[in-house]
Amino acid sequence: MVKFNSNYKNLKPSYLFSDIARRVSEHVASTGAKVIRMDIGDVTQPLSAPIVDALIAASQEMGKVSTFRGYGPEQGYAFLREAVAGYYAKMGVELAADEIFISDGAKSDIANITDLFDNENIIALPDPVYPVYFDSNLMLGRKINLIQGNRENNFLPMPSSIAAADIIYLCSPNNPTGAVYTREQLKEWVDFALENNAIIMFDAAYEAFVRDNIYPRSIFEIEGARKCAIEFCSLSKTAGFTGLRCGYTVVPHDLASGSQSLNKMWLRRQTTKFNGVPYVVQRAAQAVFSQEGLRATEDTLNKYLKNAHLISASLDEVGAWNTGGKHSPYIWFACPKGMASWEFFELLLNSAGVVGTPGSGFGKCGEGYLRITAFNSYENTLAAMKKIKEIAANL
Amino acid sequence: MVKFNSNYKNLKPSYLFSDIARRVSEHVASTGAKVIRMDIGDVTQPLSAPIVDALIAASQEMGKVSTFRGYGPEQGYAFLREAVAGYYAKMGVELAADEIFISDGAKSDIANITDLFDNENIIALPDPVYPVYFDSNLMLGRKINLIQGNRENNFLPMPSSIAAADIIYLCSPNNPTGAVYTREQLKEWVDFALENNAIIMFDAAYEAFVRDNIYPRSIFEIEGARKCAIEFCSLSKTAGFTGLRCGYTVVPHDLASGSQSLNKMWLRRQTTKFNGVPYVVQRAAQAVFSQEGLRATEDTLNKYLKNAHLISASLDEVGAWNTGGKHSPYIWFACPKGMASWEFFELLLNSAGVVGTPGSGFGKCGEGYLRITAFNSYENTLAAMKKIKEIAANL
Repeated sequence: MVKFNSNYKNLKPSYLFSDIARRVSEHVASTGAKVIRMDIGDVTQPLSAPIVDALIAASQEMGKVSTFRGYGPEQGYAFLREAVAGYYAKMGVELAADEIFISDGAKSDIANITDLFDNENIIALPDPVYPVYFDSNLMLGRKINLIQGNRENNFLPMPSSIAAADIIYLCSPNNPTGAVYTREQLKEWVDFALENNAIIMFDAAYEAFVRDNIYPRSIFEIEGARKCAIEFCSLSKTAGFTGLRCGYTVVPHDLASGSQSLNKMWLRRQTTKFNGVPYVVQRAAQAVFSQEGLRATEDTLNKYLKNAHLISASLDEVGAWNTGGKHSPYIWFACPKGMASWEFFELLLNSAGVVGTPGSGFGKCGEGYLRITAFNSYENTLAAMKKIKEIAANL
Repeated sequence: MVKFNSNYKNLKPSYLFSDIARRVSEHVASTGAKVIRMDIGDVTQPLSAPIVDALIAASQEMGKVSTFRGYGPEQGYAFLREAVAGYYAKMGVELAADEIFISDGAKSDIANITDLFDNENIIALPDPVYPVYFDSNLMLGRKINLIQGNRENNFLPMPSSIAAADIIYLCSPNNPTGAVYTREQLKEWVDFALENNAIIMFDAAYEAFVRDNIYPRSIFEIEGARKCAIEFCSLSKTAGFTGLRCGYTVVPHDLASGSQSLNKMWLRRQTTKFNGVPYVVQRAAQAVFSQEGLRATEDTLNKYLKNAHLISASLDEVGAWNTGGKHSPYIWFACPKGMASWEFFELLLNSAGVVGTPGSGFGKCGEGYLRITAFNSYENTLAAMKKIKEIAANL
């Protein structure tokens, strides 16, 4: 008799986004008022011209027998792995092309990487947290320790606050808080991992938003990280690939235990359980790393960052404690007067028609905070911040 | 201290395709002779015009702010799930759109579906076998029972030959043998699964090659299958999507154990560990199911089948026992004079410059057989079969 995976019974259904959607539509139905969505977790700017051109050229190749491409290498075409290696080289990080695995996005890889590890490992996750780290481990019945993020540590928990951990998830710039680890802070984490023979799963999906060299964009900028870290990155937020699906994962050759190399294990995992990213998407991704592609990407990132800076500055103006928004499209702030996340969400929606994301949806430590994002237009962001300032002034 | 998944130590490296490549290149280097590759496991015809047009149109949408698409539903856009449901309806199979999950290919899904089951299940696999079924279960340390395919059962093993099984993998038309189960044979498997509370993983990746209604194209054509089967399908061989990556998996609502629904578990798995297929690829896939798309697909399939029929007929002519090739791009035949797979591979390469795939590479039961495929040009297929017939006549 077939036995299902009973760990799935322990997963809590996530109602966060459906709850928000329901409350917003009820508000619109009863008031007829327009709302400004400051809870958008997706890019809104279209793909840039060099990327679209590459997509179209590759699509045309696929229609001719002489240039048609069937199965590609599961780990990605060399032209793209080399382009990614070149991108890392500019940060001063030297990677071999076979340490880079092209994927359909950081989410898939960060969830599937669990395949390489024994279920007896102790998992350490920050709270608040991107739910994928939590749920992908809960599905395997693994023991999870939460590391508290709070105002005292600027939502950048440090190793001193955990007892034991075999696998540690870090995300910087952080989703959902936008907080960014400095070089020294990441060094502490790397040292902790090395001392404890732990592995760091480093989610660098928002690296392209970093605008100051005191914040590493890759964990491999830190000495020793090659011996204890796997890095996940994505073109989703960097270049608007949320609907096109392409990311990359770096598994250094140095990660090994006896005869087992994690790089070789991941290669085996991917060749067995994955069949590569569409050729046309890999050509589009290659275009991101071209000179024109990088310039276009920079323009788009600057649009989002302009919004983020406006949000940060507005919150500072009214004395609302906040983090993120300088090297991240996310701004995380304390609800005024110690209000709970959903309480302030409702106030903001009902009195200003502005929608944020309740921090409590990302974990217990998110209670009392709201996340707003920089993905709306500048005009809407300006209007929303004007309203938030008015509310704060009148509380 | 982090513990790696030790089951990976039990995986055997597969040297099959690299062995073939090495022997072929040595042959070419020493003789300077041309070879005809009859071992191609990938499509060779380009994408048809309706598919390329859809890809390009969708790429252009992605470049405009008004038509740009970011994150889509992880289980696929409704337009594509409904197109797939329409395709099934033509076979007389009624599916709800939310029983269909769009994926980046049958390989990923058939390997990732293991997530939903406990490691204590007993797995039954045919031998010879597509290695993904075997390796994805070995990675989890699951007990695997092989079901023998042989000349006596036409490489279509039946349930009478297994003792116990909780999860059974079937592939029809089969990779690597090309053999196809009849309606009555599949009914025996469904009945066995229902009696034993087992689940059938049905790999229908080659269904589009079936040309006779006595062979089901979907397991859901069989009464009772909704209560015991998951079906995996792909546009790879149907419409040349090996490099574009799109397939679909059907998880009926009827599959449940207590409060656990496999459909809901797979939805949760995919929303947590996957982020959907690229929008542009989903539009291309939708075009496959249009009237023009289906017509173009049919033309390409007929090209491959013309080669397959030629191969089958040529082998029949020289009295070589063979299966497949009528409703499949694969032909599986007994090496003449009881030769071993690699022995005949070498003879064929050295005396005729023709390359096949040794059956022993797909399992012990494949020893003494060779697989040849219908993906080369008609001219090359004709030349290769002429040579094979000459060899067989002179042995």
